Amino acid sequence: MLRVVSVIGDSETSDKGEIKFAEKLGTMLAERGYVILTGGRGGVMEAVCKGAKQAGGITVAILPSADKAEANPYVDIPIPTGLGWARNQIVVLGGDVIIAIGGRSGTLSEIAYAWMYNKPIIAVPRFGGWSMLLGGKKVDDRRKDKIFVANTVEEVIKKVEEIFSVLNNF
Amino acid sequence: MLRVVSVIGDSETSDKGEIKFAEKLGTMLAERGYVILTGGRGGVMEAVCKGAKQAGGITVAILPSADKAEANPYVDIPIPTGLGWARNQIVVLGGDVIIAIGGRSGTLSEIAYAWMYNKPIIAVPRFGGWSMLLGGKKVDDRRKDKIFVANTVEEVIKKVEEIFSVLNNF
Amino acid sequence: MLRVVSVIGDSETSDKGEIKFAEKLGTMLAERGYVILTGGRGGVMEAVCKGAKQAGGITVAILPSADKAEANPYVDIPIPTGLGWARNQIVVLGGDVIIAIGGRSGTLSEIAYAWMYNKPIIAVPRFGGWSMLLGGKKVDDRRKDKIFVANTVEEVIKKVEEIFSVLNNF
Amino acid sequence: MLRVVSVIGDSETSDKGEIKFAEKLGTMLAERGYVILTGGRGGVMEAVCKGAKQAGGITVAILPSADKAEANPYVDIPIPTGLGWARNQIVVLGGDVIIAIGGRSGTLSEIAYAWMYNKPIIAVPRFGGWSMLLGGKKVDDRRKDKIFVANTVEEVIKKVEEIFSVLNNF
Repeated sequence: MLRVVSVIGDSETSDKGEIKFAEKLGTMLAERGYVILTGGRGGVMEAVCKGAKQAGGITVAILPSADKAEANPYVDIPIPTGLGWARNQIVVLGGDVIIAIGGRSGTLSEIAYAWMYNKPIIAVPRFGGWSMLLGGKKVDDRRKDKIFVANTVEEVIKKVEEIFSVLNNF
Repeated sequence: MLRVVSVIGDSETSDKGEIKFAEKLGTMLAERGYVILTGGRGGVMEAVCKGAKQAGGITVAILPSADKAEANPYVDIPIPTGLGWARNQIVVLGGDVIIAIGGRSGTLSEIAYAWMYNKPIIAVPRFGGWSMLLGGKKVDDRRKDKIFVANTVEEVIKKVEEIFSVLNNF
Repeated sequence: MLRVVSVIGDSETSDKGEIKFAEKLGTMLAERGYVILTGGRGGVMEAVCKGAKQAGGITVAILPSADKAEANPYVDIPIPTGLGWARNQIVVLGGDVIIAIGGRSGTLSEIAYAWMYNKPIIAVPRFGGWSMLLGGKKVDDRRKDKIFVANTVEEVIKKVEEIFSVLNNF
Repeated sequence: MLRVVSVIGDSETSDKGEIKFAEKLGTMLAERGYVILTGGRGGVMEAVCKGAKQAGGITVAILPSADKAEANPYVDIPIPTGLGWARNQIVVLGGDVIIAIGGRSGTLSEIAYAWMYNKPIIAVPRFGGWSMLLGGKKVDDRRKDKIFVANTVEEVIKKVEEIFSVLNNF
């Protein structure tokens, strides 16, 4: 079974730094053998897929519509669901770890799901949005941990590797 | 077509004021002919259904599991979905207006969905939770409005009636 | 908790006898206090809802789209799901008994789900389609029973009442 | 974008010929670069994944539960959905072509979905089940084509390649 990292975040962004960050993250995750799972649309999702493909990684996308054409050009394996935003549950369940970058209401629903389904969550606060608002916080009191905060791509990678080393002990 | 109000909120709560509030809300909504839609579980959901039944209202529940036995005892029409928390999308889509009371991660995912699907949202901040944190705020910049705030049952009812009078003009 | 009967069948049909049958069935079910659950669209679904409303019954619809406007005019409580045909699972789970009339591929998927989820199924073979092909048969060997066959509205009603009298013993 | 073939069929079977067939099919599809998509469980699904891995292919699974542990040991990328059998819609939407082997009620629901979503379907009739009953037939009159029949692994592969050569012309 391959290790899968779900990356969630803005489907539209004009912040070049955010795009650069997501691309670099995709590349570094792919170099380490992680499969990239996203919602398959634009913005952060597209950038992380683009970065992953530059390192020869595998990118999987869980699409809202029933049509593969909705996927961004860097998706290897598009999975259309026809479920609308209910597909957000699957984006979260497919990942062993969830990384949030920026994020509006769609990302917020995914963070909520990740929390409910006990997924480890790493938030990158520097591009604002719900990743900033929830980074370092608890979504509610049902879990003892908090959403991890990582400010650089290297910090994200380090945290991902720590989480997988714990998961492997089960 | 009947007018449907979705009520979302804590599935567990020990706050007697919150339970009383939800019951009274259920009664006043039912008296005015609104169908009550909830996720069918305990806490706020059960209280609002109980109140609605005291006024002879109709209560519908969208359940996470595939089993009607999951519904609280005040549900007339349980709709098991077998979808887990992905059913939260349907709780929101079934309502013409969404009322949030308290709320943890599940309620948060429903508020996010309500925002994404352009549903009018009324939040009751006095029992804390995500209704307090998001009341009077925007979830993101895709909508011009804010989440309405109502502090008493009467204020909720007034706001619900205002919203339906606008909806009826379309 | 109200007793709910799901009626599945052709969303389009030019067979006036089939429409008449569905209307009469809706009326007779409503007269006996059963809530009618359908997929909310045209043809058999619309006819059974129309018949139910003539007897003052309650009609609930599980819609494929995210928009209540998709419901036929005789639906009291439309539940938009935004799930496409995946909503067929919910049409089946919401009913205590499933009645199939005619039926094309959508109805076939619902019969398959009804079988998988151990729902009692009554098929009306006289209007052709999958209700004719599967009436009196097993879908596979996982269940000991067969799909019941009923040729008249009265036979359907009799079978529905038998099934509920058994269900009530649990 | 990679080409994806969904294979549907019995999750339990004691027919060694059927298992052998599925394994060989998995191997031959993987050798030609097709990604294998299944429901991730046992029987035919496990055999086709096993065969694909012997040729170094990529196997993706759309699971009913919310837990990756449900996947068979030959799945590279398990996608838990938490949707129960509603996940059958996604098994079908994820494939460019659908291959059915044997099959009980779950497979039947997938064939119905494949028909509704206009997916090309190839059925292998020799192991019985719904693939035998529906091979060479139409599910209803909404499509002009019929379900293709293939009796050997080689015939399946030939048909798959014909279908993709047509798809590529769009």
